[in-house]
Amino acid sequence: MTQPSQHPSTKAELKYEGKAKRVYATADPEQYLVEYKDEATAFNAQKRGSWAGKGATNNAIAAALYPKLEGAGIPTHFVAKLSDTEQLVKAVTIVPVEVITRNVAAGSFAKKLGLEEGTPLPRPVVEYCYKSDALGDPLINTDTAVALGWASEGDMARIRELTLQVNAFLTPFFLERGIRLIDFKLEFGKLPSGQIVLADEISPDTCRFWDAETNEKMDKDRFRRDLGGVEEAYGEMLRRVLS
Amino acid sequence: MTQPSQHPSTKAELKYEGKAKRVYATADPEQYLVEYKDEATAFNAQKRGSWAGKGATNNAIAAALYPKLEGAGIPTHFVAKLSDTEQLVKAVTIVPVEVITRNVAAGSFAKKLGLEEGTPLPRPVVEYCYKSDALGDPLINTDTAVALGWASEGDMARIRELTLQVNAFLTPFFLERGIRLIDFKLEFGKLPSGQIVLADEISPDTCRFWDAETNEKMDKDRFRRDLGGVEEAYGEMLRRVLS
Ligand SMILES: Nc1ncnc2c1ncn2[C@@H]1O[C@H](COP(=O)(O)OP(=O)(O)O)[C@@H](O)[C@H]1O
Ligand SMILES: Nc1ncnc2c1ncn2[C@@H]1O[C@H](COP(=O)(O)OP(=O)(O)O)[C@@H](O)[C@H]1O
Ligand SMILES: [Mg+2]
Ligand SMILES: [Mg+2]
Repeated sequence: MTQPSQHPSTKAELKYEGKAKRVYATADPEQYLVEYKDEATAFNAQKRGSWAGKGATNNAIAAALYPKLEGAGIPTHFVAKLSDTEQLVKAVTIVPVEVITRNVAAGSFAKKLGLEEGTPLPRPVVEYCYKSDALGDPLINTDTAVALGWASEGDMARIRELTLQVNAFLTPFFLERGIRLIDFKLEFGKLPSGQIVLADEISPDTCRFWDAETNEKMDKDRFRRDLGGVEEAYGEMLRRVLS
Repeated sequence: MTQPSQHPSTKAELKYEGKAKRVYATADPEQYLVEYKDEATAFNAQKRGSWAGKGATNNAIAAALYPKLEGAGIPTHFVAKLSDTEQLVKAVTIVPVEVITRNVAAGSFAKKLGLEEGTPLPRPVVEYCYKSDALGDPLINTDTAVALGWASEGDMARIRELTLQVNAFLTPFFLERGIRLIDFKLEFGKLPSGQIVLADEISPDTCRFWDAETNEKMDKDRFRRDLGGVEEAYGEMLRRVLS
């Protein structure tokens, strides 16, 4: 069925178009091509924008981070960067649970608990949301994910373990580059073998990054909150990641 | 300091007046007197009502259930029923976490996940909310409770274990009496010894009870949703508990 003559990275049909990326089939059924778009959305796509180079910046950041995470023993979907805006990944069945890790209270978490944004948490808090745009990604927990059949108990335990490993690697990685990793969202997927791997993206779209000296926001909150300098902040994050 | 001549159940100063109960100090510093009020509130006290006999009914239901739970090995704050509307309990430091167990999707849980109310869950889901009227009892998880210092990791594990024991006892107890235990809210407290015990109340205010034959609601949802027959449903629940 596969066409060995075709380069595996040739785009076949569009499998899924999301808010920030397009996912294409390739000649290899075990690999997808992910194209990072210039579009930015916030508040469940109620707010929309875009800027030239956003896709390339996020693609470059993710493509730089995944191999480092692999080096730290964390299995990821990443295969190779193909072009400015494209990367090749292992095709996975995404677990429909967004995994949020918080080192410092910010955003919805700070608000719902009446905490000042910027309050450090004495230990990381891992939260889970059901990945459903229609329902607004509601907060759930492990019991709910298991009861509703989105993941097994073992999968959820592995996801938590990998998430804490990602946090333990990325927190000092960014701090050495003058950035506080405030919180971030991960997605995990399952390979045909059943192995859970880190999927989706890691970028200023999915993390809160604050400058360690000034606490200046270096992430999508600049877009969400109309702070200006969005493009510059993303570009600066890429420079720091590559430094 | 204590006055041994005074009956321990004599009310001393009012320690706390909540939405459904008053908590009084007694001559014994290790015991509180809880008075069940006739007031009913819903939606974080935005909706208010009351009916004669509500306090007595809930007091009688709770006073009947706690000894049964003790018999099943679950430590509770209950000491004795003192009068129609009063019971004596062990004074505890309440863990400010409301523990919700769900056997069937209903209420806010069904709504946020797009499930039809009445969808059975293949296994119980335990959820945690931060007990704060000012913040509207936001949904949290164990990590958050521990990170914000509301309970230790060990306390939360014990609370979960006791909660599942309560569910495992009450589900068949009510089913034998023709009632499906859909979901319920518990509160736990700490004795001076550090022991975690079940506190607060168990009543149609804090549980969803559906008639096993007709699925008729026999709980506070009759009040919340203006279904009528609230008083009759509470009275019927007391009869079934005592049967
Ligand atoms: N390795 C992968 N295999 C299959 N699907 C993936 C993989 N990595 C990410 N995805 C999914 O592809 C989509 C990426 O596009 P994105 O624009 O982020 O979508 P969304 O709007 O759903 O967040 C997401 O739904 C994500 O879950
Ligand atoms: N054994 C106990 N010791 C101390 N406080 C208790 C005990 N049992 C319950 N409480 C607390 O007493 C209050 C009971 O009153 P209630 O009307 O339910 O209050 P609320 O409006 O806060 O829910 C609650 O705040 C509850 O946490
Ligand atoms: Mg996405
Ligand atoms: Mg109460």
